[in-house]
Amino acid sequence: MGKIGAAVLGATGAVGQRFIQLLENHSWFQVVELIGSERSAGKTYGEAVRWILDGEPPMSVIDLPVKPLDAEIDSTLVFSALPKEPATTREPELAAAGHIVCTNASAHRMAEDVPLLLPEINADQVGLIEVQRAKRGWQGALIANSNCTVMPVVMALAPLREFGVQKVMVTSMQAVSGAGYPGVPSLDILDNIIPYIGGDEENKVETEARKLLGRFDGSRVQPFEAVFSASCNRVGVVDAHLVVVSMALAAQPSMDAVIEAWNTFRAPEPIPSLPSAPEHPTLYLRQPDRPQPRRDRDAGRGMTTTIGRLRLCPVLGYKFIALSHNTIRGAAGCSILNAELLAVRGYLPDFAPLRVSSAL
Amino acid sequence: MGKIGAAVLGATGAVGQRFIQLLENHSWFQVVELIGSERSAGKTYGEAVRWILDGEPPMSVIDLPVKPLDAEIDSTLVFSALPKEPATTREPELAAAGHIVCTNASAHRMAEDVPLLLPEINADQVGLIEVQRAKRGWQGALIANSNCTVMPVVMALAPLREFGVQKVMVTSMQAVSGAGYPGVPSLDILDNIIPYIGGDEENKVETEARKLLGRFDGSRVQPFEAVFSASCNRVGVVDAHLVVVSMALAAQPSMDAVIEAWNTFRAPEPIPSLPSAPEHPTLYLRQPDRPQPRRDRDAGRGMTTTIGRLRLCPVLGYKFIALSHNTIRGAAGCSILNAELLAVRGYLPDFAPLRVSSAL
Amino acid sequence: MGKIGAAVLGATGAVGQRFIQLLENHSWFQVVELIGSERSAGKTYGEAVRWILDGEPPMSVIDLPVKPLDAEIDSTLVFSALPKEPATTREPELAAAGHIVCTNASAHRMAEDVPLLLPEINADQVGLIEVQRAKRGWQGALIANSNCTVMPVVMALAPLREFGVQKVMVTSMQAVSGAGYPGVPSLDILDNIIPYIGGDEENKVETEARKLLGRFDGSRVQPFEAVFSASCNRVGVVDAHLVVVSMALAAQPSMDAVIEAWNTFRAPEPIPSLPSAPEHPTLYLRQPDRPQPRRDRDAGRGMTTTIGRLRLCPVLGYKFIALSHNTIRGAAGCSILNAELLAVRGYLPDFAPLRVSSAL
Amino acid sequence: MGKIGAAVLGATGAVGQRFIQLLENHSWFQVVELIGSERSAGKTYGEAVRWILDGEPPMSVIDLPVKPLDAEIDSTLVFSALPKEPATTREPELAAAGHIVCTNASAHRMAEDVPLLLPEINADQVGLIEVQRAKRGWQGALIANSNCTVMPVVMALAPLREFGVQKVMVTSMQAVSGAGYPGVPSLDILDNIIPYIGGDEENKVETEARKLLGRFDGSRVQPFEAVFSASCNRVGVVDAHLVVVSMALAAQPSMDAVIEAWNTFRAPEPIPSLPSAPEHPTLYLRQPDRPQPRRDRDAGRGMTTTIGRLRLCPVLGYKFIALSHNTIRGAAGCSILNAELLAVRGYLPDFAPLRVSSAL
Repeated sequence: MGKIGAAVLGATGAVGQRFIQLLENHSWFQVVELIGSERSAGKTYGEAVRWILDGEPPMSVIDLPVKPLDAEIDSTLVFSALPKEPATTREPELAAAGHIVCTNASAHRMAEDVPLLLPEINADQVGLIEVQRAKRGWQGALIANSNCTVMPVVMALAPLREFGVQKVMVTSMQAVSGAGYPGVPSLDILDNIIPYIGGDEENKVETEARKLLGRFDGSRVQPFEAVFSASCNRVGVVDAHLVVVSMALAAQPSMDAVIEAWNTFRAPEPIPSLPSAPEHPTLYLRQPDRPQPRRDRDAGRGMTTTIGRLRLCPVLGYKFIALSHNTIRGAAGCSILNAELLAVRGYLPDFAPLRVSSAL
Repeated sequence: MGKIGAAVLGATGAVGQRFIQLLENHSWFQVVELIGSERSAGKTYGEAVRWILDGEPPMSVIDLPVKPLDAEIDSTLVFSALPKEPATTREPELAAAGHIVCTNASAHRMAEDVPLLLPEINADQVGLIEVQRAKRGWQGALIANSNCTVMPVVMALAPLREFGVQKVMVTSMQAVSGAGYPGVPSLDILDNIIPYIGGDEENKVETEARKLLGRFDGSRVQPFEAVFSASCNRVGVVDAHLVVVSMALAAQPSMDAVIEAWNTFRAPEPIPSLPSAPEHPTLYLRQPDRPQPRRDRDAGRGMTTTIGRLRLCPVLGYKFIALSHNTIRGAAGCSILNAELLAVRGYLPDFAPLRVSSAL
Repeated sequence: MGKIGAAVLGATGAVGQRFIQLLENHSWFQVVELIGSERSAGKTYGEAVRWILDGEPPMSVIDLPVKPLDAEIDSTLVFSALPKEPATTREPELAAAGHIVCTNASAHRMAEDVPLLLPEINADQVGLIEVQRAKRGWQGALIANSNCTVMPVVMALAPLREFGVQKVMVTSMQAVSGAGYPGVPSLDILDNIIPYIGGDEENKVETEARKLLGRFDGSRVQPFEAVFSASCNRVGVVDAHLVVVSMALAAQPSMDAVIEAWNTFRAPEPIPSLPSAPEHPTLYLRQPDRPQPRRDRDAGRGMTTTIGRLRLCPVLGYKFIALSHNTIRGAAGCSILNAELLAVRGYLPDFAPLRVSSAL
Repeated sequence: MGKIGAAVLGATGAVGQRFIQLLENHSWFQVVELIGSERSAGKTYGEAVRWILDGEPPMSVIDLPVKPLDAEIDSTLVFSALPKEPATTREPELAAAGHIVCTNASAHRMAEDVPLLLPEINADQVGLIEVQRAKRGWQGALIANSNCTVMPVVMALAPLREFGVQKVMVTSMQAVSGAGYPGVPSLDILDNIIPYIGGDEENKVETEARKLLGRFDGSRVQPFEAVFSASCNRVGVVDAHLVVVSMALAAQPSMDAVIEAWNTFRAPEPIPSLPSAPEHPTLYLRQPDRPQPRRDRDAGRGMTTTIGRLRLCPVLGYKFIALSHNTIRGAAGCSILNAELLAVRGYLPDFAPLRVSSAL
C-alpha cells in the first residue's frame, strides 16, 4: 500500500528473476507488471518462468500476466533486464514515452547522454538526465548500470581516486551466472576454465571503467584518465566475480592509507540511507585468503564489494583483489539502488516527499 | 633389461605417484626403489599407497618394499618428490654420496650452484654441475626443476627473449593437484576460488622465473633482467595451471612474429629426441577460447605448453594466456626429462653410449 | 538479557560453527561458553577458529575464550559437536554433573536410555530422560540427534507411518560438509563421486531410522518394524543430503494420499511454535526435477525437508526423493530444536514459564 | 589402405565427436563421410564442429565436407549419432538402401526386429538381422546399442544370469556428457544435483534391460524375466555413469561366487579378439570406495565396466555399484564394437575374410 509500482522487462531471464527476488518486500517499490519474450507472453509468470534462483518465485508475482515486449506499460518506473538487441530500440521508446528506465542492458551504456550510474561513486551523473531530456526531447529517462565485471574494479578504485590512479591491470574470474541461463554449458566448465568471455567483455571493462569513475562537468562525463587492461575468464563458480588488480598510484600512498581509504569510504548523503545501500560500499578483509566468492558474495546483502590482499606489485606498484556479487551489486541490485536515488531526487512523481524525509 | 634403475623419494605422495606413473614403460629408466615416510616404511608399495591418480598403481611397483628416508639407496639415479623440509637435508646427503638427484622440491632451487633445469630453455645450466661438484666436493649432483606455476610462464617467454622481455605480470589459476594430497579441502573450493597459494608461491614465480630464463656464464647463472609480478589463485580444476600474462617487449614485434616464435620454438639437439620431450615445447592455439585446462593439459602427453589469446595490452603492450600440466610438465615429467638430458650428457654411468646414439 | 546461557563443545569444528551461527540472535539461548580442542584452548574464539561458513564469526563470540575439554562448564545447557571419541566419555560426565547435553555426536545415539530426539516425529522420546536419570542417577540428561543422512528419510517416512511402511531402500547423495573440515579432499570429489562414506554410515541409516520412527512405551523405544537398506555416496555438493527412496506400503495408498500426508504433516503442540521449528516439517514440491540441493536446502531456514518425484516403483511399490540440509536440519539445527523442546518441558531451570506462555 | 570406409551421422554432436575420436587409428574402419545438421552442411568438418572433447579434431577428418542429412551415402557402414527424431525416419531409409546402420539413437531400440546388441552379453541378437530383412525387405540392416545408463547395469548382471536375477533396483548418478552439448546448463549442476533425466530415462533403463539380457529364440528376443526399477540423477561429473544396484538372486550365491562370476566373465569367441573389445568386460575392484567415475572410467580404454562394494542388502539380498564410461562403453564405443562383430559375421562385404583370420 502506497508503494510505487514497477515493471520488469525481461522478467523470466536470469537477471529478471533477480530483480523480482530483490524487489520482493522492497519498502518503496512493488513489481506490478512483467514483460517477457514472445514465448512467455500470455502466460502467467508462474507458468512462463523456469525459476533458477533458490526456492520458488515469490507468491506476489506468480499470477501476474507476462506481457509481450511491445505492450503498453502503466508503471512510470521500469527495470530492464532485456538482452542487448531488444534493449536497443525498446528502452529509448519507453524513455521517450515518459518512463524512468533503469536498465542493466549494455546497449546504451556508453551513449554520451546516458548516465552510467553507480550511486556511491558517481551520483553526479544523475545530472545527465537533464542533458538527455534536452537533447532527445524525452519526458522520461534512460539510466544504465555497468557491466558486472567492471563493478568490483571501480568500487575498489573510487576511494583511491585521490591518490592518482594511473594504470590498472585487471584479471577476472567470473561466475557462470553472468552468462545468464542456460548460459555456460556444464561440459565447458566442470574441471575447467574458459579463458574468454563473449560480448566484448574485456573492452567493456576497459571503457566503462573510465566513464564510471569520470566526472560530470554539467554537460558531459569527462572520462577518468587512467589506462585499463582487462583479461576475462569464466570459472566454475555460481555467483560473484573476483578480480585481481594491479595498479599504479601517483601519490604512492602507504598500504595503511589505501586500506583506510577503503574502510572509511562512504557514499554522499542521502545514498547511505537508501533501502538497498549497504553499510559498507567497500570493505577490506584482513585474512590472507579473502575475499572468496562463496563466502563473501553476500556481504552487505550482496551489495558490499569486499577487498583483500593489498601488497606491493613489482611492476605497477600495488596489487589487490576485489569481489562483487555479479547479479546483485553488478546487476539488479545496482539498478534498484539507482532507482532509489532517482526517487529521492524527484524523478518518480508518485514518490511522496514526506515519505522520503521520514524514510531517510 | 638393460634399463637404468631409479629410486623415487616421497613415492606415496601425489608427485611421487606421478613419477611412478610416468616411469612405467619408460624406455631408459625403471623404478626399482621406493622411499616413503616413516608411516609407509616396511610395507609394500601396494599396501602403503593411497593411489589418487586414475586406475591403479602399476603392477611393476606394487610389491616393491617402501624404504625409510634414511635407508641406503642403490640406484645412482634418484627422483625426489620430497616435501621441502626432508629435502633440505636428505637431498644433499645423497648427492654427496654419488647420486644424481633430480628433485621437484623447492628447498635448493635458488641455491647458486644448483641447476634449475628446464631442458628446452636452459640446457646450459647443466654446466652448473661441475661448479657444484667443485664447490661441494660431491661425487653426485643435485638438479632441481621449477615451481609448477612458473613453468607455463617461462615456457611461453623463452621463445620471446629475442624481443627483449622487460616487464611481466602474471595471474595464475591453479589446479588443486598442485597442493598435493589431501591438499585443498573440497569445502574450500567447490563453488569457490581461493585467491591465495601458500608456500610463498607468488615470490617463487617472481624469482624462479629470472633464474630459469637466465644465462649460465661458466660459473653462475646471470638472472634474466625482466621484472615479474605474480598473483596466484586456486580454482576447482583437477590438473593444469593456467596463467594470464601481460608483458612489455622492447622490440615491439608484430603479433604474427610472436606467434611465429612460439610455433617454431624448438629445443637444441639432442633434447627433441629425448624420450619425454614433446614434439612442440610451445604451441599456439588459434581458437579464441583456448587453451583450457581440461581440454589442453594432455597436449604432448602433458609436456607441451599451450598458448593462446595473444592481443594488445593497453598497459604493458601484449597479453596472452598459457597452460601447462602442473604435475607432468610442471613437476615429475620435467624431472624425468632433466634426467634424460643428464643421461646423454654422461652423468649416469650405466647409460651406454651406444644406446644413446641409436636412440637419438 | 534474560536469555539462557549455553556452552558449545567442539566449537571450532564444522558443526560447532553451525551451532554458533544458528544461535546468533536466538530468542531464548545465547552462547556464553566455548569448548575446543587442546590446540585451541587458551585462545580467543577469533584466534582459534578457521571459520568455514559464509562471512565471519559473529562478533558476540569472537572474544570468548576457548576452554579445554575438561574445563568446568557453568551453563546448564550444553550443545555438543564433539567427535565420537571424546564424546564417548565427556558427554556422560557432563550429564551426570547436571548438564542438559544436546549432542550431535554418534557415540550414544543407540544407547537404550538416550532419546534420539526429532521433535516433529518422536517427541515422546523425551520420556526416556526419566528412564535415563533413574538408571544412571544423573542430575542432567543426554539427548542425541540423528545422523544427517537418515534425517530426510525419517522426516519423509514419519507422515506415512499410518500406511504401514514395510521395506525401505535408500540411496544417498551426500554433501561434502557432512565430512567436516578439512574433510573430503578436493582431489577426491572434483569431477567425481566417492561411493562410500566412512564411519559405518550405511549401518547408521539402517539402525537409527528404526529408533527414530519407533514408539516410546514408557520404559523403552520399540523400534519401528520396517527393514531398511542404505547405499551412501559423496558428491560434489557443499550442503544438503539428497536421498532416493523406494518403499513398500502395506495400505497401498493413492499417490494423492501420500502427497497429502506430507503436505499436511504437522508436529504436535507446542513444537510448531518453537523458535527453530519450520512452518512445514515436510513439503512436497510439484516440479518434476525438485528438490535440488542448492535450490531447496534453505527451505524453512534449512529446517524443512523437501520431497519430490513420488511415482510407482515396479519393485517395492513407491519411490520418491527427499532433501534435508545436513548441518542445519541434520545436525546443529535439530539439536537446537531439541533444546527448545526440553526448555518448554521444564528441563532448563532458568527458562521462565511466563516467557514460554507468551512466546508460544 | 584397405580399411573399410564408414560414414558418421550427426558427426558434429557430442556422440558424433566421440565416434570420430574412437575411429581415429581404428585398425579396420576409417571415417570417410560425415553427415551433419543443415546448419553444418556445406562446411568442412573443421569449420562446422565445435569440438568439445580433449585436444583438437583428428587431422584426418578436418577437411572432410559435412553433408546434409538427406545426402546419398557411399559407405556401406554407417554409424549414427542422430537425435531421436531424424533417426526415426532416416535410419530405416539407409538400412533399406543397403547400409549397415549401427545406431546410438533410441528411436528403434525397442522395435521387435532390431537387435539391441551388446556383443559380450547377447551376440545371439545378430540373428535378428535376418528376421529384420525378411520382414522389411531390406538389403542392409539396422542395429541399435543401448541407453548409456542401462549399460553398467546389464554388464554387471549378465554374468549373474545363472544365479536367477529376479528384482533389480537401480539408482544412477549420471555424467553431464550424457545430455550432449550444450546439454546441462552449468547453473543447474554446480554445487547441485538434478534428480531427473529427461527423455523418459528411467523407463528406458527398466525396459531396455530386459531386452538386452533377453534370449533370441530364432525369431524374437524373449525378454529377461526380472523386474527393474530405476531412479536417475544428474551429477556434476564430466564422463561416466555410476549405478547403485540392489538385487534379488534366486540361487543365493556366496559373495565370493558373485565376484568370481564378474572376474571370470568373458565374451564368446571371437568377441574378445575384436579391436574394441576390452580384456575384461567386467572387473571387480576390491577397494572399499571404488569404482569412481574420474578414476575408473578409462578402464579397458573406456570399455570395461568396473564393479565394487558387493555386500548384503537387507531388503533384496545383494547390493553393489557399477560404472561405465557413458560415451564410450555406453555409446560410440559399443556401436563400433557392434560393427566389428558384424564385420566378422560377414555383414560388411568389403571385409576380407583373410584379414579377419589374421586379425583374430
